[in-house]
Amino acid sequence: MQFGHFDDVKKEYVITSPKTPLPWINYLGSENFFSLISNTCGGYSFYKDAKLLRLTRYRYNDTPLDQNGRYYYIKDGDTVWNPGWQPTQTPLDSYECHHGLGYSRFVSSKNLVAAELTAFVPLADSCEVNRLMLTNNGTEEKTLALTSFVEFCFWNAVDDMTNFQRNFSIGEVEIQGSEIYHKTEYRERRRHYAVYAVNCPIDGYDTDRDAFLGAYRGNDRPETVLRGTAGNTVASGWGVIGSHHIDVTLKPGESRSFIFVLGYCENAADDKWEAPGVINKKPAKEMLSHYQTDEQVDAALAELASYWDGLLAKYALTCADEKLGRMVNIWNQYQCMVTFNMSRSASYFESGTGRGMGFRDSCQDLLGFVHLIPDRARERLLDIAATQFEDGSAYHQYQPLTKKGNMDIGSGFNDDPLWLIAGCAAYIKETGDFSILDEQVDFDNDSTKAQPLMEHLKRSFDFTVTHLGPHKLPLIGRADWNDCLNLNCFSAEPGEPFQTTGPSEGPVAESIFIAAMFVKYGKEYAAICRRRGNEEEAVYAEKEVEKVYQAVLDAGWDGEWFLRAYDAAGEKVGSKECEEGKIFIEPQGFCVLAEIGVKEGLAEKALTSVKNILETKYGVVLLQPAYTKYYLNLGEVSSYPPGYKENAGIFCHNNPWISIAETVVGHGNRAFDLYRKICPAYIEDISEIHRTEPYVYSQMIAGKDAAHFGEAKNSWLTGTAAWTFVNVSQYILGIQPDYDGLTLNPCIPSDMEEFKIRRYFRGAWYNITFKNPEHKEKGVSSLTVNGTAVEGNLIPITEGCTEYDVVAVM
Amino acid sequence: MQFGHFDDVKKEYVITSPKTPLPWINYLGSENFFSLISNTCGGYSFYKDAKLLRLTRYRYNDTPLDQNGRYYYIKDGDTVWNPGWQPTQTPLDSYECHHGLGYSRFVSSKNLVAAELTAFVPLADSCEVNRLMLTNNGTEEKTLALTSFVEFCFWNAVDDMTNFQRNFSIGEVEIQGSEIYHKTEYRERRRHYAVYAVNCPIDGYDTDRDAFLGAYRGNDRPETVLRGTAGNTVASGWGVIGSHHIDVTLKPGESRSFIFVLGYCENAADDKWEAPGVINKKPAKEMLSHYQTDEQVDAALAELASYWDGLLAKYALTCADEKLGRMVNIWNQYQCMVTFNMSRSASYFESGTGRGMGFRDSCQDLLGFVHLIPDRARERLLDIAATQFEDGSAYHQYQPLTKKGNMDIGSGFNDDPLWLIAGCAAYIKETGDFSILDEQVDFDNDSTKAQPLMEHLKRSFDFTVTHLGPHKLPLIGRADWNDCLNLNCFSAEPGEPFQTTGPSEGPVAESIFIAAMFVKYGKEYAAICRRRGNEEEAVYAEKEVEKVYQAVLDAGWDGEWFLRAYDAAGEKVGSKECEEGKIFIEPQGFCVLAEIGVKEGLAEKALTSVKNILETKYGVVLLQPAYTKYYLNLGEVSSYPPGYKENAGIFCHNNPWISIAETVVGHGNRAFDLYRKICPAYIEDISEIHRTEPYVYSQMIAGKDAAHFGEAKNSWLTGTAAWTFVNVSQYILGIQPDYDGLTLNPCIPSDMEEFKIRRYFRGAWYNITFKNPEHKEKGVSSLTVNGTAVEGNLIPITEGCTEYDVVAVM
Repeated sequence: MQFGHFDDVKKEYVITSPKTPLPWINYLGSENFFSLISNTCGGYSFYKDAKLLRLTRYRYNDTPLDQNGRYYYIKDGDTVWNPGWQPTQTPLDSYECHHGLGYSRFVSSKNLVAAELTAFVPLADSCEVNRLMLTNNGTEEKTLALTSFVEFCFWNAVDDMTNFQRNFSIGEVEIQGSEIYHKTEYRERRRHYAVYAVNCPIDGYDTDRDAFLGAYRGNDRPETVLRGTAGNTVASGWGVIGSHHIDVTLKPGESRSFIFVLGYCENAADDKWEAPGVINKKPAKEMLSHYQTDEQVDAALAELASYWDGLLAKYALTCADEKLGRMVNIWNQYQCMVTFNMSRSASYFESGTGRGMGFRDSCQDLLGFVHLIPDRARERLLDIAATQFEDGSAYHQYQPLTKKGNMDIGSGFNDDPLWLIAGCAAYIKETGDFSILDEQVDFDNDSTKAQPLMEHLKRSFDFTVTHLGPHKLPLIGRADWNDCLNLNCFSAEPGEPFQTTGPSEGPVAESIFIAAMFVKYGKEYAAICRRRGNEEEAVYAEKEVEKVYQAVLDAGWDGEWFLRAYDAAGEKVGSKECEEGKIFIEPQGFCVLAEIGVKEGLAEKALTSVKNILETKYGVVLLQPAYTKYYLNLGEVSSYPPGYKENAGIFCHNNPWISIAETVVGHGNRAFDLYRKICPAYIEDISEIHRTEPYVYSQMIAGKDAAHFGEAKNSWLTGTAAWTFVNVSQYILGIQPDYDGLTLNPCIPSDMEEFKIRRYFRGAWYNITFKNPEHKEKGVSSLTVNGTAVEGNLIPITEGCTEYDVVAVM
Repeated sequence: MQFGHFDDVKKEYVITSPKTPLPWINYLGSENFFSLISNTCGGYSFYKDAKLLRLTRYRYNDTPLDQNGRYYYIKDGDTVWNPGWQPTQTPLDSYECHHGLGYSRFVSSKNLVAAELTAFVPLADSCEVNRLMLTNNGTEEKTLALTSFVEFCFWNAVDDMTNFQRNFSIGEVEIQGSEIYHKTEYRERRRHYAVYAVNCPIDGYDTDRDAFLGAYRGNDRPETVLRGTAGNTVASGWGVIGSHHIDVTLKPGESRSFIFVLGYCENAADDKWEAPGVINKKPAKEMLSHYQTDEQVDAALAELASYWDGLLAKYALTCADEKLGRMVNIWNQYQCMVTFNMSRSASYFESGTGRGMGFRDSCQDLLGFVHLIPDRARERLLDIAATQFEDGSAYHQYQPLTKKGNMDIGSGFNDDPLWLIAGCAAYIKETGDFSILDEQVDFDNDSTKAQPLMEHLKRSFDFTVTHLGPHKLPLIGRADWNDCLNLNCFSAEPGEPFQTTGPSEGPVAESIFIAAMFVKYGKEYAAICRRRGNEEEAVYAEKEVEKVYQAVLDAGWDGEWFLRAYDAAGEKVGSKECEEGKIFIEPQGFCVLAEIGVKEGLAEKALTSVKNILETKYGVVLLQPAYTKYYLNLGEVSSYPPGYKENAGIFCHNNPWISIAETVVGHGNRAFDLYRKICPAYIEDISEIHRTEPYVYSQMIAGKDAAHFGEAKNSWLTGTAAWTFVNVSQYILGIQPDYDGLTLNPCIPSDMEEFKIRRYFRGAWYNITFKNPEHKEKGVSSLTVNGTAVEGNLIPITEGCTEYDVVAVM
């Protein structure tokens, strides 16, 4: 069952029912100011940091679902309705929500009045613009009362929802004309305020939430709105809202637009006030002046569209499969950009109050957006590397505002260092910019410890070399990629963190997954060393890689699949000898992806086991059989009910690893089958089962052991976006950035006869046509570049050439 | 305007409108299991710790106000209503909420069906019992559908409202007959679960919140309830509720009762399961067996009533002023017990997730309940003292579950040590139990550092002696009683804690308030030393007290009032020389209360200044003029908008100090005037202004500088309860426990001609009649004990006497 459809021309997903299974959201903003917006106008806004500088209040896990947002009430006689349906939930005569790239548009109507609400964050300012266009489609004059509504958050989102003995006394506002200023705590140490304004005179306002709503009422039926007149209330303490009241008369056929702006403004410490107790409004006035007319708004929207068109043009696929096209060209890349902006902070599943930027997460996310924004990827890499310790290990997380590592979870996730190599290699392959390796980068955010980035990579590499266990496999530490596999923690008390309770790190527990990473990214390290002229280091690295490769063959193979790990007692994890959790997905994917066991024939076996044991109709589950009870020696993985999350859920992030692995062994049909299984566009028609947005990936789909098999959770902020884009763009469609240029190595379904990709790479445009007349699954048999046949599958870079026309025949 | 009335016979406050200005709540529970319950059935339950073991989910600062509670839906034809009005808000034909001692009763009716819902936590079990009695008052048979509802919290209240990426996947339940078991996380490390059951067969159940409510619906109109049939849903992840569906047929005149129990159960680690994946229900079955019949419930209610009657009988006033009587006999003592149980953790203003037990708070609270529960006060004192450091300073807070000091705010609040002396002195005076001083008590919760409690008191005393500043006045440290006066912190960045940013402690900033405390409680320390036979220490202590007394006279007097402090630069705080904050309440109250400046004539002057400058019609504000801007050198006090909280709000806690001070100088009329101003029963008729419950004190009433002058906030959990009871019981009514017995020293309004008090003291009952034929304001001129005239105002203790009849003539 569908609740909407894709509009590939406008690059929109058009939702046609407000009652989606879960709120389906979009992200607005691309630099500092961000908003989450659902298909019923729910969500909230923040400046840079969703925890510390939250502008509006959102109520997570609320009933009714998805409460609070930017709401516009239209009172037409006795009927009060909202363009986005919520919060009144008044049935609409028509409704559409168009989630586009950086904007959302609501097109709806009721009783011959049409509303078109366009919400976006302009590129140039720290604000959300909401243009509401009302049209009288009837034959008689309409007198309407329009009431806007946002509820302000008192900046720190955690304090805002816990510290009421203080917060109920501190709310402050100023109102000037059509501008409402939220200035709580500005009187003391803050230098920022929020403004909520509209581009026309108003007939009233409200800022006191409880007076606006009336006693014991919700947003669904504010007393003020039903009454049709504003209270002109000035909030002092309690809940602070911004609400404009505008009386509107529309002749038959007449349209009128209203431009609302919710913005964030800062002043210098010595320029906070324009008079005692009166805030300096200059920056707000300046910002508001940019959005006073429809022409200005149209221009800002055009600029935004142009920004996104420019980005997405960098990898554009033309093919017969429209679902593949829309995912590759639009939604997958779009989601990658959102993970760049958000990391794992703010979604409808991440409350924006917790995790900072993850070391591992951010390196992986980068794989998905480095081709779009290489400069910002460069900056990100340097930020990440600066949180590394001198021994090569790293803070597992760092704060987005300060960019400093934090000790909440600390260090000791032994895969972390290798992800830095992965990220740097991807950046260099994309850009050819080896100069990044010469950048001086702090260790532990301490500038006295700065070293060239190249030295960081060496420490990353050596960290694994110096942290091997009894089987010569890498020690796992607190956890590897699977944060929930905690082999050195033995937590028996509720509330203890699974990752940091007990010894956390130990000399025995080993990870085959990290071994695979070391083989893959160790080879990258060697390649980088060689290209930098350090042959000695390259040879050293290759020898160390070879040793770990051998260790996996010696101690990491279970007969039909790769083992997952050895625990702190030296017992196997993910083995046929185990009672539960006999086979895990991660080592099968990553070992093969690292080409371990390919020549020995183990890769095919491992993938067959995945197909036979782990694959389901909705994707590949993480492990089988699911853990039915808690294992002290395994940690959090066994804490989830069977079928959810890491305990045998379809953890989407690692599904592309299996798909990539299939390409490694040349199985184009299999790889594409796996790609499609979790790909949102392909499962749009089971939205009533899948439940999350059909245009973006979710972190997890409940596995076959779960009550709700096939139900997805934690949409948007997941490494799935990056890895799937790597999979489809590089391994399936086969355009691989390499140190010397683009190489072509497609691995596709055999019935795919032709496809074209226009790709931007190092200052030039590549128009590549793939032809597959013989219905092969993998490889390129002939290559023509600008009319000239070329040996091999590398497109040589021609100095000064900015347009390459390439034909690759499989 | 009133929203209800007192019923002094039943010891209830009877609320007659569900739409009170704010939710008016009550507390259920007296040992381990507690519930908050509002006049519309809102609130939540927890076991021991409101943060870590929360049973049900509550949504703070929600709209509509006060969402979630224990709800009973009654469907009668097309009408669905709740006995407590919320959440359907269906208008009721009649409504009363009776908040009593440890129970709340809702009596309401709709369409000839009457409901009586009684909620309480029995003394004997860890559960809340809800008995719902339905009666058909019509002449025709009624067919009703009864649906119960609670929403479960996933135990840790902070995690529950932030960690959705995990929590939406972990919810688990079991249903057995009429019993619903909430067992989220029981499968891993928890050994506890919740049970929600009813004492009759059911016709259906629901545990999946979203299925129960229906898409995008709130508790106000659950689809299941409106439909009239249960969904029999089994929750798996997402929101977990407990809901029973019972079809009820009532003949004309017929009544039927339903007993619902929400309980907390624990199992031993090796006895968690009765079968794989099936929880051991033995403790639940045992608990439920106690509440199967009306007789059992009646017995438990009677036991509860008897418990409270026994407690409150310990101080019982008979007088002509019914408002005074109900506050002294019922509500003030009741509130003191609630502060004993809750400290500052869970109210409708304290989210239950933050502060632990305060060192200072708990010592002060004890002053109000030591006469009620001396044994538990003893235990509390030993817990508190164990968090003291060896140098006499103390952790400012400690955790209720572990009883260990916590470093969230750390130490350095230099008044803390002296509160320990205050608490111990009060305990010994009440009980005569000097043996407490011989108890071995840890320092810093380290048993190897244990010393007798007497040594703790010495370290407390000496801490001040060794921490004096340039004027020989006590150093303030991070703050004294006024946590917001932060003279050693200089925070300029938002989000920094005001108390711990910057140096926090310093060698210059001094507190006149701590000086007054030192004089008062230093004298107590000397008295205790003397009674313990340590004359040398007593003399030493008295000399140190005298020095500080002199220092206050020398450097703490501003001409018309006492100074508040010296800041880190040695500048005066609370002086006529200041631009704002010229006069503070605390030193005026506490200096006079400590008898500083009485003989010098300063006390009267200071109190006159309070009357002229600080007093308002709603109470005495904390300071004047209010700070209109942020002062880096003063800290949090200047962060509040003028008129709120410590910045010139009526901070009720310190109002009784002024009242006591007036008794010290013999002003009975003034003292009582001040007592009445903030006393809830006396301002019941301005509930529309006061807004919080008219039966308990609030922490703060907005001052005259605020927009909402007279509006109270932060009701229930405030030291106001204890200090007001000390004021009214000891200083106004004048029964003062002393080391050698009760002394009588009333200071009353001159028109009060007679009053009687029955008081329990050290195993005996005292029936004391005060007569004031000459309309005096203070003192006792003659005393008769059991018919014999006695010199002075001490009632001598007669060995073996268990009943004293006392007549005191003023």
